[in-house]
Amino acid sequence: MPRKLVHRPAKKIGAAPGTLVFTGEKKVEKCRIRVIDYNPQQLTESEIPVKDVAQCCPLKDTRSVSWVNVDGLHLIKVIETLGSCYGLHPLVMEDILSTEQRPKVEDYENYLFIVIRMLTFDEERSEIKAEQVSFILGETYVISFQEVEGDVFDGVRERIRNGKGRIRKMGPDYLAYALLDSVVDSYFHILEKIGDQIEQLEEELVTDPTPETLRKIHEFKREMILLRKSIWPLREVLNGLQRDETPLVSEATGIFFRDVYDHTIQVIDTVETFRDIISGQLDLYLSSISNRMNEVMKVLTIIATIFIPLTFVAGIYGMNFEFMPELRWRWGYFAVWGVMLGMGVLMFIFFRKKRWL
Amino acid sequence: MPRKLVHRPAKKIGAAPGTLVFTGEKKVEKCRIRVIDYNPQQLTESEIPVKDVAQCCPLKDTRSVSWVNVDGLHLIKVIETLGSCYGLHPLVMEDILSTEQRPKVEDYENYLFIVIRMLTFDEERSEIKAEQVSFILGETYVISFQEVEGDVFDGVRERIRNGKGRIRKMGPDYLAYALLDSVVDSYFHILEKIGDQIEQLEEELVTDPTPETLRKIHEFKREMILLRKSIWPLREVLNGLQRDETPLVSEATGIFFRDVYDHTIQVIDTVETFRDIISGQLDLYLSSISNRMNEVMKVLTIIATIFIPLTFVAGIYGMNFEFMPELRWRWGYFAVWGVMLGMGVLMFIFFRKKRWL
Amino acid sequence: MPRKLVHRPAKKIGAAPGTLVFTGEKKVEKCRIRVIDYNPQQLTESEIPVKDVAQCCPLKDTRSVSWVNVDGLHLIKVIETLGSCYGLHPLVMEDILSTEQRPKVEDYENYLFIVIRMLTFDEERSEIKAEQVSFILGETYVISFQEVEGDVFDGVRERIRNGKGRIRKMGPDYLAYALLDSVVDSYFHILEKIGDQIEQLEEELVTDPTPETLRKIHEFKREMILLRKSIWPLREVLNGLQRDETPLVSEATGIFFRDVYDHTIQVIDTVETFRDIISGQLDLYLSSISNRMNEVMKVLTIIATIFIPLTFVAGIYGMNFEFMPELRWRWGYFAVWGVMLGMGVLMFIFFRKKRWL
Amino acid sequence: MPRKLVHRPAKKIGAAPGTLVFTGEKKVEKCRIRVIDYNPQQLTESEIPVKDVAQCCPLKDTRSVSWVNVDGLHLIKVIETLGSCYGLHPLVMEDILSTEQRPKVEDYENYLFIVIRMLTFDEERSEIKAEQVSFILGETYVISFQEVEGDVFDGVRERIRNGKGRIRKMGPDYLAYALLDSVVDSYFHILEKIGDQIEQLEEELVTDPTPETLRKIHEFKREMILLRKSIWPLREVLNGLQRDETPLVSEATGIFFRDVYDHTIQVIDTVETFRDIISGQLDLYLSSISNRMNEVMKVLTIIATIFIPLTFVAGIYGMNFEFMPELRWRWGYFAVWGVMLGMGVLMFIFFRKKRWL
Amino acid sequence: MPRKLVHRPAKKIGAAPGTLVFTGEKKVEKCRIRVIDYNPQQLTESEIPVKDVAQCCPLKDTRSVSWVNVDGLHLIKVIETLGSCYGLHPLVMEDILSTEQRPKVEDYENYLFIVIRMLTFDEERSEIKAEQVSFILGETYVISFQEVEGDVFDGVRERIRNGKGRIRKMGPDYLAYALLDSVVDSYFHILEKIGDQIEQLEEELVTDPTPETLRKIHEFKREMILLRKSIWPLREVLNGLQRDETPLVSEATGIFFRDVYDHTIQVIDTVETFRDIISGQLDLYLSSISNRMNEVMKVLTIIATIFIPLTFVAGIYGMNFEFMPELRWRWGYFAVWGVMLGMGVLMFIFFRKKRWL
Repeated sequence: MPRKLVHRPAKKIGAAPGTLVFTGEKKVEKCRIRVIDYNPQQLTESEIPVKDVAQCCPLKDTRSVSWVNVDGLHLIKVIETLGSCYGLHPLVMEDILSTEQRPKVEDYENYLFIVIRMLTFDEERSEIKAEQVSFILGETYVISFQEVEGDVFDGVRERIRNGKGRIRKMGPDYLAYALLDSVVDSYFHILEKIGDQIEQLEEELVTDPTPETLRKIHEFKREMILLRKSIWPLREVLNGLQRDETPLVSEATGIFFRDVYDHTIQVIDTVETFRDIISGQLDLYLSSISNRMNEVMKVLTIIATIFIPLTFVAGIYGMNFEFMPELRWRWGYFAVWGVMLGMGVLMFIFFRKKRWL
Repeated sequence: MPRKLVHRPAKKIGAAPGTLVFTGEKKVEKCRIRVIDYNPQQLTESEIPVKDVAQCCPLKDTRSVSWVNVDGLHLIKVIETLGSCYGLHPLVMEDILSTEQRPKVEDYENYLFIVIRMLTFDEERSEIKAEQVSFILGETYVISFQEVEGDVFDGVRERIRNGKGRIRKMGPDYLAYALLDSVVDSYFHILEKIGDQIEQLEEELVTDPTPETLRKIHEFKREMILLRKSIWPLREVLNGLQRDETPLVSEATGIFFRDVYDHTIQVIDTVETFRDIISGQLDLYLSSISNRMNEVMKVLTIIATIFIPLTFVAGIYGMNFEFMPELRWRWGYFAVWGVMLGMGVLMFIFFRKKRWL
Repeated sequence: MPRKLVHRPAKKIGAAPGTLVFTGEKKVEKCRIRVIDYNPQQLTESEIPVKDVAQCCPLKDTRSVSWVNVDGLHLIKVIETLGSCYGLHPLVMEDILSTEQRPKVEDYENYLFIVIRMLTFDEERSEIKAEQVSFILGETYVISFQEVEGDVFDGVRERIRNGKGRIRKMGPDYLAYALLDSVVDSYFHILEKIGDQIEQLEEELVTDPTPETLRKIHEFKREMILLRKSIWPLREVLNGLQRDETPLVSEATGIFFRDVYDHTIQVIDTVETFRDIISGQLDLYLSSISNRMNEVMKVLTIIATIFIPLTFVAGIYGMNFEFMPELRWRWGYFAVWGVMLGMGVLMFIFFRKKRWL
Repeated sequence: MPRKLVHRPAKKIGAAPGTLVFTGEKKVEKCRIRVIDYNPQQLTESEIPVKDVAQCCPLKDTRSVSWVNVDGLHLIKVIETLGSCYGLHPLVMEDILSTEQRPKVEDYENYLFIVIRMLTFDEERSEIKAEQVSFILGETYVISFQEVEGDVFDGVRERIRNGKGRIRKMGPDYLAYALLDSVVDSYFHILEKIGDQIEQLEEELVTDPTPETLRKIHEFKREMILLRKSIWPLREVLNGLQRDETPLVSEATGIFFRDVYDHTIQVIDTVETFRDIISGQLDLYLSSISNRMNEVMKVLTIIATIFIPLTFVAGIYGMNFEFMPELRWRWGYFAVWGVMLGMGVLMFIFFRKKRWL
Repeated sequence: MPRKLVHRPAKKIGAAPGTLVFTGEKKVEKCRIRVIDYNPQQLTESEIPVKDVAQCCPLKDTRSVSWVNVDGLHLIKVIETLGSCYGLHPLVMEDILSTEQRPKVEDYENYLFIVIRMLTFDEERSEIKAEQVSFILGETYVISFQEVEGDVFDGVRERIRNGKGRIRKMGPDYLAYALLDSVVDSYFHILEKIGDQIEQLEEELVTDPTPETLRKIHEFKREMILLRKSIWPLREVLNGLQRDETPLVSEATGIFFRDVYDHTIQVIDTVETFRDIISGQLDLYLSSISNRMNEVMKVLTIIATIFIPLTFVAGIYGMNFEFMPELRWRWGYFAVWGVMLGMGVLMFIFFRKKRWL
């Protein structure tokens, strides 16, 4: 369980707010800046070296839609430069860097600041990994910040290049939608994986529950707690975006945001369903433990209840009294056997009646 | 447990929104399009071959009420044609095809898009099956999409043909109501079936609970989780329709929607009641397991507590010491029997006092 | 447990809404119509034969307050006649007949339609019975529909006859209040009965809990679930009536409705308290089962732990080895007794220290 | 457990609303009426004999603040007289007398009617007693009704007499505040007592839990249920008073009501905390029972597992076969002892490994 | 468990509201007053002797931002003097002194009164300590009251002295923000400590759960209850401050308050997550107890079930009947051994089949 439960916010206690410190682990070596600038007619795609990050600044004022994608956050310089030329609030920059933010959307008049959590499933260790993705949605641009370089946005990039579909014709709000949509879509992927595992667990529970099963249930429960924490706030984020509260999101795009919102509700529903199912599995596990204990007890009781009295009878005739008339009887021994068999049969009938056999 | 817990949304990660892919299983071979066009005076009913689906388009502009019913969603062409001539939003078409939508109602100015879940009870495997039913409610038409051809709407069809009652006199909003009402009515059918089974389980619990009973309780619990997920959102859907928020639903029809809303609340109440009852049954099951264990333990304890000391006494006089005065006593053997019977009686009194016998 | 858990709504699947079918059991043989027409000065009371039900119609237009009380719903003709002359909406008539409605109030401009559930306690079978009571509150009339003839409204009838108090001076809204108040008052009667039984159960739990106690707890729990389902929605009903939202309820009467509302809240509070107490009792029961099991185990353990080693010692000297020096010792036998007593005392001290004795 | 769980409302089923019947037990012999009339300059204090209750009536119209305090409610005449001269609504009078009201505030234009519950801790029987206190807050007067004469209001009385502080300078709303504040303050006293007892229980739980402990936990739980029922609704009452919704409460006094409101929230928080702690204690109790059972089982298992096989060995050589070679061996007896000791040591090692010893 | 569960409010029952009594323990000897007065250009820092507290009063009217920090509340005189020259409401002064207030913000037109709880982690006794911190935020000043002198505000003091960053340029609202932010930041520190301990507990649970583990879980649960009580209300406090409802908080500072609000939500989320995890751990503990009991029972059952029948067989041939043919058989003894071994093997197979071995 190597995941940390709490993370301090970006700055040290007492440090001035807006002080830029990257608090995550440095997850990638390289910091990569990719820029796509497009309008319905044309498209420019380029990768900008970290030291020349200021080249992104003029894009702010072009009329075409420009998407600046930053992978890797450990170079504070990059954030600072972008922040100053795009006029970002110091708290926004601080939040981009402190990678344990709760998903949220904040309206800073000229731009929206959106923070969400990207989840990936590490097949090898079969655990979920979370990273923070932040978006700045301005009037003519979208800036996205990722902790590590991923492939989730590749589909969007492809669609922009192809120039097919709606994306080239619409503004940066639609681009932001497309990016958010990719992230939410990827949640379904995770849920599918977890769903498979839960079903496998269900089978294990029915056929052969072991303490290992319990440990797995416990781990799923914990995973659900963390998943929930990542996804629930997204609901409010998308609810905020779908309503036409900001001029940065056009009404036409609002309908699309409503669609992602629906998907998020579906994801949340599924997470809640999983929680219910897992807690049902815990009950089932505990009951099956009780059932087994019961069965063990019955075996013990049947054996003990049959043989303890018989042993007593044998003990009686093992006594060494000088005068024990039965001992001299011709058929004494066989009579005792008869008594014993009789007792055994009675017990058997008793257990049958009790439905223990 | 062949039901899948999660379903991905329609498109692959990164695919453009609005890309039409049918994600359900292909549940029927044929795709069938039936059209009914009526006004108080006359009625035209026809079945349109799939390749001529474009014939439905002119109906949009007639003043009579037209109901286009599509069974089977695997022919994307059909949805596309209808979508383009009725001016449906790409997301609507996508949602019709991705058959794991959450029930919802969406207002697209010219038409309402309603998604609900139809439930059927598979008697054979005694499990609930869900399919998605979507409605487009326009000013003069209703289009309904079903995954498989069912008989739930037959009653409505019959009422239209007869021309009796309110249905022929009222607009497409009333038709939409009638269709929704049929679906909600069918829920009662399901609940009745489940209610019967729960009562049967109750009886089983009282007379003879087995681990099989536990498994059934667990399955019911799970069924309730899934049922709830299907029905709860319907509440909001119908609440949205009953209020006169859209000009597509007249005030007169609003009263009828309020009635379906009431039925839905009743269904939800019943599902919640079932959940409570089932969780009470689980408690009862666990307690009865404990009770039985207790009983088993008592039997064991009574037998062991009576015979272990007696066996000890017998063991004493089975010892081979040369000098054991009791062994030589004339009435030693009978005295021992006396002592043993005395001990037995004392034990019996003790157990009585403890109320174990 | 003869109560059914679910009831289908009035009509068959697909039947036209507004089709009148009585869905309850036919609980009374006779259908009885009683009419009281009064103003502060005078009073007419009459019983109208079922076939002449149309005689009630002219009352609609008199200025005096008229109360039509229908007991027994199996004669659909009666409802139809009243419905048509009082101008009731078809859905209202349908709801009057389908006797498993959720309590609700519906505003149909000219009249209010109120549905509530009347509860009676069947002393003999010690279970709660529910029936549906519906009210139509018009500008000058109240129509009440009951499944069976009961005595709950007798007090109101008496007060009208006496002409004392407020009732004769006020309008039909006050009459409706008086009737609702009688019903809510009768809930207290039920709760008192249940409260007594719960207290009895509490005593049983403390003195001598048996599996029968568990069964009773379970039944109470179930009863509470059903009670809750009947009473909770009443809250909204009365909340709706207390606010001056409809011209049919005068401000002066609104204060009285607020009073019934308060009583309902009190009833709900009590039901919730009962639920909490019952669930506490279940915990107590389970704990006492555990405690007892513990006690049983201790007795077994004490006996076994004392005598098993002693029996072993006796067994040792029951062996038939040719060379066993102890057997020949003069005081061997008594020494063994000494050893055994010593072991017993040590065990006793051990159990004391463990606080098992 | 002598406290009744339910109480019928004031009147019998069917009795006219507003019929005055005192439903509580007659808790005091005497009915005492004390009147204080004050303004910043002067103060009149008097006790009015019950038969002359009408003397209170002129106070209604004086400009000074008058506080009429009635202890004991069994003399309906008193309530009636006050009610008629102060113009109280019949339902108000009925509610004053039916002493199981839920805390509430009702606005009757000319006056506010406030009902709260006063709690006192009966040290002797260590249980909480509740009585109803009602206030009428008019423009120039406060009337308070108590079931029994208590000392909670003595502090307020003293402050009025002293003429120090704010109370003499402010209106009846401030007086009402002062009285409510005394009542809420007294809750802290109760909570402190209960808190002490819960802490004591905590200690008992850790050192030596007995079934008696369980009974206490159960009783606390029940007490909390009843406490909660008394205090929760107070929240709404005070929330209603703190907002300037009625001209009867001045803005300056509103700030003071906000303070009592805060105290109430604090009380509710504490009650909820207690509930959580108690339910945690129940868990702890159950776990410690399980733990002990486990310990008992281990002792039994260790003893049985060691001695049963040894007894078997002894039994073997107690057999009387004619040909048993070991019996003739010179060191047979000692060899058997050796074998037995070896088995014992092995068992000991086994239990050590299992960490049972 | 030395923490008290309830604390009475400041005054005795019946004491006039606004009476100043310090109710906390006297946690520090000295009462220290530190004043910082600054504007963007200059800074005055001074410590004022307790007896000259009135020197703080003129600061109210300067245009520069002044921060008066009072450590130690036992000198009521200090509060009174500050209260009267800054025009504080008596209830505010009372609340500053009664150190068990619920976090809250109150708007008194000229100033805001903010109460929050400062938490510190006592490493030695590994428990959380809470103290109350109150702020008065006026137009040109902030007054802060602490129970003990702490180092949480040192960072803010330093930033003011350095004159770097935003703090010197902005008003007292920003200063209040900076102080609140320090406190909320310190919560993360606490949570981190607790998180570490919970993870340690998790490990203990998996490897070797003991009753001590249970005690720890119970203590954590309790700690969470108290933590929650301290932090939850902060949510509302900061929500109130972030919205521009008061002219005392500028819009620019509102954005910063929104940031602390976000942090608080994050803290609350974490506390809730901890609660869920701890309650999961309790389940896990209980299950592992059950599992172990099961294992113990199995060992007992296996041993008893194997040896009790064998002992019976040995007992049979230990009987002293004169005529027992088997005893004379040449290979009788060995035959018995054979039978016994056979029985043992059968048992072994039986247990294998049951999967107990």
